[in-house]
Amino acid sequence: MEKGTEKKPEKEKKISAAVIGRLPRYYRYLGELIEEGTERISSRDLAKRMKVTASQIRQDLNNFGGFGQQGYGYNVRSLYSEIGKLLGIDQQHNVIIIGAGRLGQALANYANFAKRGFVIKALFDVNPDLIGNTVKGIPILDVAELEDFLKKNEIQIATLTIPKTQAMEVFGRLKACGIRAFWNFAHTDLPVADHEKIFVENVHLSESLMRLSYRVYEAGRSVEKEKKPAKGKEE
Amino acid sequence: MEKGTEKKPEKEKKISAAVIGRLPRYYRYLGELIEEGTERISSRDLAKRMKVTASQIRQDLNNFGGFGQQGYGYNVRSLYSEIGKLLGIDQQHNVIIIGAGRLGQALANYANFAKRGFVIKALFDVNPDLIGNTVKGIPILDVAELEDFLKKNEIQIATLTIPKTQAMEVFGRLKACGIRAFWNFAHTDLPVADHEKIFVENVHLSESLMRLSYRVYEAGRSVEKEKKPAKGKEE
Repeated sequence: MEKGTEKKPEKEKKISAAVIGRLPRYYRYLGELIEEGTERISSRDLAKRMKVTASQIRQDLNNFGGFGQQGYGYNVRSLYSEIGKLLGIDQQHNVIIIGAGRLGQALANYANFAKRGFVIKALFDVNPDLIGNTVKGIPILDVAELEDFLKKNEIQIATLTIPKTQAMEVFGRLKACGIRAFWNFAHTDLPVADHEKIFVENVHLSESLMRLSYRVYEAGRSVEKEKKPAKGKEE
Repeated sequence: MEKGTEKKPEKEKKISAAVIGRLPRYYRYLGELIEEGTERISSRDLAKRMKVTASQIRQDLNNFGGFGQQGYGYNVRSLYSEIGKLLGIDQQHNVIIIGAGRLGQALANYANFAKRGFVIKALFDVNPDLIGNTVKGIPILDVAELEDFLKKNEIQIATLTIPKTQAMEVFGRLKACGIRAFWNFAHTDLPVADHEKIFVENVHLSESLMRLSYRVYEAGRSVEKEKKPAKGKEE
C-alpha cells in the first residue's frame, strides 16, 4: 500500500466479496484490450469503457498491488494475468457435466471455457441414445459409471444440467465422491449445511428471465400511471 | 398495512430492488408447495425450507398485502398468484432468440419458460444449414428477415445467444425496431445510454464459472495457510 513499495504478489491480503464479484468483468475487459493490442490504459479510459467511475477502478485495482502508475496507466497484460491468477484461471480446472441434454451439450461446446482453463472431461446421462456419443470429442458416459470415473480422474467442478427431480440424488453422489464445487443449472437450490465446505454457483435461467419481465412490466405500469394521474382514476 | 384492512391489490406501492430480486425465488418455492398440494404455510416453515429468517419472509411478503394471518400462515395459491402478477407472469411475453446454435436451441427447448408465460416465437440465425429447421415446432428464420418479422409480430423480449462480435449490430437493429428488453448471453456488455428505456438482463456464463473457481481456489489457499502458519513459512 505504501508508495515506493516493491511490487510483490500480495497473496495474504483479504479481498472483499464485492471486489471479487467485479473481477471477472475486469478480466473480460482487459482480455478485450489485449485482443485489440492495447498495452496500457488509464483508469479514466478503462472507467469510460466499463461505465464505472475511475475512482472505483483505482480502489478495486489497488487491491492487487502497484500496477497503476501516475501518468502511465495500467499495464494491461500484467493486470490481466494477476487477476487471472486470483480467479484461479492460471490453473487447469477439470469439469464434468451431468445431463447431456441440449444445455449440457451447449456448455460442453463452448470454446471460451477451455480458454480460461476449464477443461470438460466428460458428460453423463441416463439416456441410452446419448451414452457413447461425443460432443467436441468429449465422451457422454452412463451416469452409473460416475463413481468409477471420479475415482480414476481428478475433477474439481461438477455442472448440473439435469431436471430438479434428479438433482438431489446426483448431488449426494457427487459430494460422497469428494466433489466440492457445483455449477448448478437445475431449477432448485442444492442443500448445503454450514459446516460443509461446498461451493455452489447457481444459474437459475427462469429467474433471470422473470427479473427481466418484472422490469419491463414495472416500466409499463409507470407509463400507465403517467397517462392517468391518481385524481383521474375511474371507479 | 393496518390490521383488519380489507385485502386489496397494492399496485401503487414501490417495492425495493432487493425484494424484487428475491421474488423469483419465492415464486419457485411457492410453486413447489402447490405441486406438493400444500395449501398454507407459516412464515417459520417457509423460512426453514428457503434457509432465510422468518422475519425476512414476513417483511418481504408484507409488501404484497395481508396474505399472512396469525395462526393460519400464508395462503400458498394467493401468494403465488400475487407474486406472479408482480413478475408479469400472468401476461404472455413473446420472445425471440437470435442465435440458433446449441445454447439458443437449448433455451428454445426449455419447457419451463412457456409455463411462466414466455412464449418463444422464432429463432434467427445466419447459418443456411439451420435456417428453415424448427426446434420444438419453433421456426429458425434468416436473421435478414428480422425487421420484417418484428413488423408483423409483437415481440417483447429478444434473447441474444450470438458471439460478441455480432452482438452490437444485432442489438442496434433490434432497438431500431422498438425492442426494449434484452436477455443477453453474448460475452459482452450491451451499451445502453441513461436516457434509453432499455432493459438488459445479462447471463455471463464464463463469469459465473470464474466466480465459482475463485471460491474453490480461495478455499484451497486458506487450507494451505492453515497447514503452514506464517512463522513456519519457507523461503
